[in-house]
Amino acid sequence: MATRTPSLGAIVIDQLRPATPGGGGRPKTSVGEATPVQARIFRDGHDLLAARARWRKAGARTWNHSSLAQSENDIWVGTLECTDVGPHEVVVEAWTDVFATWRKELRLKVGADQDVTTELEEGARILERFLPVCSGQGRSRVEDAVAAIRDDASTMDVRLNAALDDALVPLVAGIPHEGDLTASAPIPLWVDRERARHSAWYEFFPRSEGGFKGSLERLDAVAEMGFDVVYFPPIHPIGTTARKGPNNTLTPGPDDPGSPWAIGGPEGGHTAIHPDLGSEEELLAVVDKAKALGMEIALDYALQCSPDHPWVSEHPEWFHHRPDGTIKYAENPPKKYQDIYPINFWPEDEADRVALWEACRDVLIHWIDRGIRIFRVDNPHTKPVAFWEWCIAEVQADHPDVLFLAEAFTRPAMMSKLAEIGFSQSYTYFTWRHGKDELTEYVTDLAHGPLADVMRPNFWPNTPDILGGVLRHGNRAAFLLRYLLAATLTPNYGVYSGYELRENEPASDANEEYLFSEKYEVKSRDWDRPDSLAPFMGKVNRIRRAHPALQQLREIRFHHVDNDQVIAYTKGSRASGDLVLVVVNLDPVHTQEATVHLDLHAVGLPEWEPFTARDELTGESYEWQGGANYVRFEPALDRVGHVLDLSA
Amino acid sequence: MATRTPSLGAIVIDQLRPATPGGGGRPKTSVGEATPVQARIFRDGHDLLAARARWRKAGARTWNHSSLAQSENDIWVGTLECTDVGPHEVVVEAWTDVFATWRKELRLKVGADQDVTTELEEGARILERFLPVCSGQGRSRVEDAVAAIRDDASTMDVRLNAALDDALVPLVAGIPHEGDLTASAPIPLWVDRERARHSAWYEFFPRSEGGFKGSLERLDAVAEMGFDVVYFPPIHPIGTTARKGPNNTLTPGPDDPGSPWAIGGPEGGHTAIHPDLGSEEELLAVVDKAKALGMEIALDYALQCSPDHPWVSEHPEWFHHRPDGTIKYAENPPKKYQDIYPINFWPEDEADRVALWEACRDVLIHWIDRGIRIFRVDNPHTKPVAFWEWCIAEVQADHPDVLFLAEAFTRPAMMSKLAEIGFSQSYTYFTWRHGKDELTEYVTDLAHGPLADVMRPNFWPNTPDILGGVLRHGNRAAFLLRYLLAATLTPNYGVYSGYELRENEPASDANEEYLFSEKYEVKSRDWDRPDSLAPFMGKVNRIRRAHPALQQLREIRFHHVDNDQVIAYTKGSRASGDLVLVVVNLDPVHTQEATVHLDLHAVGLPEWEPFTARDELTGESYEWQGGANYVRFEPALDRVGHVLDLSA
Repeated sequence: MATRTPSLGAIVIDQLRPATPGGGGRPKTSVGEATPVQARIFRDGHDLLAARARWRKAGARTWNHSSLAQSENDIWVGTLECTDVGPHEVVVEAWTDVFATWRKELRLKVGADQDVTTELEEGARILERFLPVCSGQGRSRVEDAVAAIRDDASTMDVRLNAALDDALVPLVAGIPHEGDLTASAPIPLWVDRERARHSAWYEFFPRSEGGFKGSLERLDAVAEMGFDVVYFPPIHPIGTTARKGPNNTLTPGPDDPGSPWAIGGPEGGHTAIHPDLGSEEELLAVVDKAKALGMEIALDYALQCSPDHPWVSEHPEWFHHRPDGTIKYAENPPKKYQDIYPINFWPEDEADRVALWEACRDVLIHWIDRGIRIFRVDNPHTKPVAFWEWCIAEVQADHPDVLFLAEAFTRPAMMSKLAEIGFSQSYTYFTWRHGKDELTEYVTDLAHGPLADVMRPNFWPNTPDILGGVLRHGNRAAFLLRYLLAATLTPNYGVYSGYELRENEPASDANEEYLFSEKYEVKSRDWDRPDSLAPFMGKVNRIRRAHPALQQLREIRFHHVDNDQVIAYTKGSRASGDLVLVVVNLDPVHTQEATVHLDLHAVGLPEWEPFTARDELTGESYEWQGGANYVRFEPALDRVGHVLDLSA
Repeated sequence: MATRTPSLGAIVIDQLRPATPGGGGRPKTSVGEATPVQARIFRDGHDLLAARARWRKAGARTWNHSSLAQSENDIWVGTLECTDVGPHEVVVEAWTDVFATWRKELRLKVGADQDVTTELEEGARILERFLPVCSGQGRSRVEDAVAAIRDDASTMDVRLNAALDDALVPLVAGIPHEGDLTASAPIPLWVDRERARHSAWYEFFPRSEGGFKGSLERLDAVAEMGFDVVYFPPIHPIGTTARKGPNNTLTPGPDDPGSPWAIGGPEGGHTAIHPDLGSEEELLAVVDKAKALGMEIALDYALQCSPDHPWVSEHPEWFHHRPDGTIKYAENPPKKYQDIYPINFWPEDEADRVALWEACRDVLIHWIDRGIRIFRVDNPHTKPVAFWEWCIAEVQADHPDVLFLAEAFTRPAMMSKLAEIGFSQSYTYFTWRHGKDELTEYVTDLAHGPLADVMRPNFWPNTPDILGGVLRHGNRAAFLLRYLLAATLTPNYGVYSGYELRENEPASDANEEYLFSEKYEVKSRDWDRPDSLAPFMGKVNRIRRAHPALQQLREIRFHHVDNDQVIAYTKGSRASGDLVLVVVNLDPVHTQEATVHLDLHAVGLPEWEPFTARDELTGESYEWQGGANYVRFEPALDRVGHVLDLSA
């Protein structure tokens, strides 16, 4: 019988966090983010334990440390914070706190009037073991204590006082002594730049603004509204074969521009620019100006081809074929999408697969080399998860600052998996969540559920594909309240242009899309309309920038309101230095009154003293005291919500 | 930039079960147990999938298979069943069901009046790919179908009928075709013998029965009561130093026998037998007779030493020392246990640790060599988890039929971890759970919670250490109802002898132990008392043996009862062939009436037809119809519960 070394240490450390729901993959955080660390830590017997987290960037020589504190059911908790982007490793370690254990037991024995002569000598020996690692002044304090504990000439009371002196605790606390120090397996942790954690996106079609030149001008207005990311739908040549006309018709006129997602024509494919938009130099000017305005340009990454894409003739092996040898267009029977050829990511020949995947990766590298650092990925759920895991790792190995937003409006399993294997941000079901209960449940799960270390939700009230809920034929208040929710519930959110002009006409009662969708035609808009929501949107983004509480999702709490049409939630806490209460009227039509019942204790507000609630939207201040506070909203007067600063 | 092969296959397979809560460790099942297999399985796009589990004993050449079916949220479920004890491996695999996908799409296209000529040829080619793996007769059926589908001379309707012939489905279903077949990482699965899954334990002190000779006679009565396992407290020599007297006093008389857990004296330690009990031959006779009666003997494994244990003088390095060089006795300050020396499982010298751990293991091997296959492990939570993981693996590597019951009455984290790393069964909190809500919640969590594949609860209404709840000064009905609960809630349960005589006197109001505890003195009992519960206990055990539903915990469901003093639960289901409804009055004093609201649909009972409920305790039958049924219990007349067979 073989004798093996035990795989577990003296102390059990398991159920580690950060973690993914499946246990594999790659949990993530961002630079400067207070990131929860957690583990179940225990050992046999009654001795007291101590624990800490240590972490470093992969390959770094030194470790950072923070201590963990014992919570309920042997769970220990703490936080870590990283300063660099890229791969990190986290280790949790624990050890028996022999000094604290000895002190606890000594007190109990003294309390029971037992003889503790031997125990005093034990304590002196424990302290001596710490001496080599104590720092200068601490060292002499400990040496003095050891001498006093052993001083036979003193009374027992004097020796006990020396032994139980609280000043000794900080001198030896947090020093793991050799003995039974046990370390967890390392947790891989991916650290993104801060933009991954909080960002405000604005999507517009450059062709509707007169190409890159016109877009250059438009950037000023977008910056004035306070956005961080400007996202362009595909900027590549558009196929003419089976091109779609206005309202998704199959009979385009000669001047109809086609859908930008039907990528590829004689002028080129995913690395080419549509000639009508302008030159590469003009695009680079847009990228540069956005940067100068504190924003960045995100491009669309849509892995599909029009029948006219160069890959179709150059690499027919990258597509699906029908028995007659023709290439298969996209289908969702009985629907047919003749203007799109889906890519076959698993060609029979492995060399073809490798060539295809590398070509797809090189599209990203092409744009990265031109200064792009954010990609909005079109329909990733219709491509293999294995491809994304490989592709994102490939790109981020050399460019750890590149971010990917997954547009996977699909089932929960696929959405969560894409986040687990590397996507930086994810579109969500927010677009279809309108009621108080469903919003509360959904956001609580996103913030505190199994995907908390994995998925960064990005809330969009509208997209070019989706005009939903109260926005359909919606009034001004509907647009205000959905905007306020998106911008304050999660730190990442975005809107598709036209939102500020309250474009609200659906394609039909049964169709989620817009009538005269910009996907199939060029739009001309009057951005300077006096009733534009742009000033409101700018104000909300300025509030977001002023409040760290709105730049994170880890601290969010919903509070009871006695009206089902009114939702209330706090972001942050008094302890973290910033506390914001958002109260929104979900009813865009009727005046609503309600009493908000704040959980004062949970967010660190005083129970018996007044505190100030300053509305960042209006500048008005209220003196509140206690948890129950009255609110009233009049949608007809643009009063759809409060964003109350409770930090003071 | 390196190009790596993707780690994921074409299909995502994750969140596998059987599993442990921490993801590591070793999930377990037993021979003949329908064991749930589960995985989250999905891929990109809309194609239909198929999936199966395969499993084999470690090292076996061939695999067993069973198919998985799609449930909600991309979770696939099925079962596996093993026939051998020991280590196994389980793999979940999935593939795109190209034939089913093609049939589904063909139907949709036909329904939309689209031309499907090309689709028919596609189907013929798909079927041709299955030909090489189709069996004889199926092969010619498929060949005929291919010909019919391609037959240009036929009408389109005839060709379509051939293509959509349902008879084709079973011929190709379940055949994974090469293409995108994806396999999960293998799951290690430990398979115990059937006794691990269901067992009725009876604990008695051989010294109170006149040693092994007297115990030999007692076995007949225990077998008559229908028990499977007879568990003896430690049978080893008992120390005299600091020996405990009656009622845990420190002043024993010369004839006081001491606690059997103060192991070791001049006659030997853990491998020796207390001379008063008899010889090794006499013990072996007990082991043999138990076997002949369909039972087996379990020994106690208590890793601690009396001051007189041979290890104390031979291996002082295996114990803790005080500064004055003396060995430390056990303490839980301010309490002192001078009759016990705890073992130091981590001696400073690694060679000492190895020698100690091996000596501990060899104690088990000693008794295994003498025919013992079950050990009840005393206080495993006061020894390192790492030791248990190593020790159990060491023993089971050569003796996979050996079982370990963990007596860890401690915090949840330690209890669950001991089960995760190898213990076969676990004592539980049942002893302290008396109310309907707490019993329902506790058992539901044990059966269906995160430990379902890991921990096998063993319910004890009493132990030599614990006389709890309604049993303290309890009446006859209290003993009946607690017995009925233990024996039917979980498939493993046990009692400590004296239960049948309703020994109910606690040591004091503040003490959980028995007055005049058998731990410190020899007991003499009149087993033949006419009011003994032995006949009732025998009846319950016979019912357990007759009903597979009571030999498992995976299928248990609590049903609503309109009286908080009455609890109702079903074990098994109509579909599994055995369905038992247990209804128990939790009130040992008052007559209780109630209406039980059976969830008929969940357990497979008919909603609109009558069904028979036969009480296995009384032999009475009731004709029931619908979910709501009346029950009445009169504790004064021994009517404390029903065990109703609903299988017919």
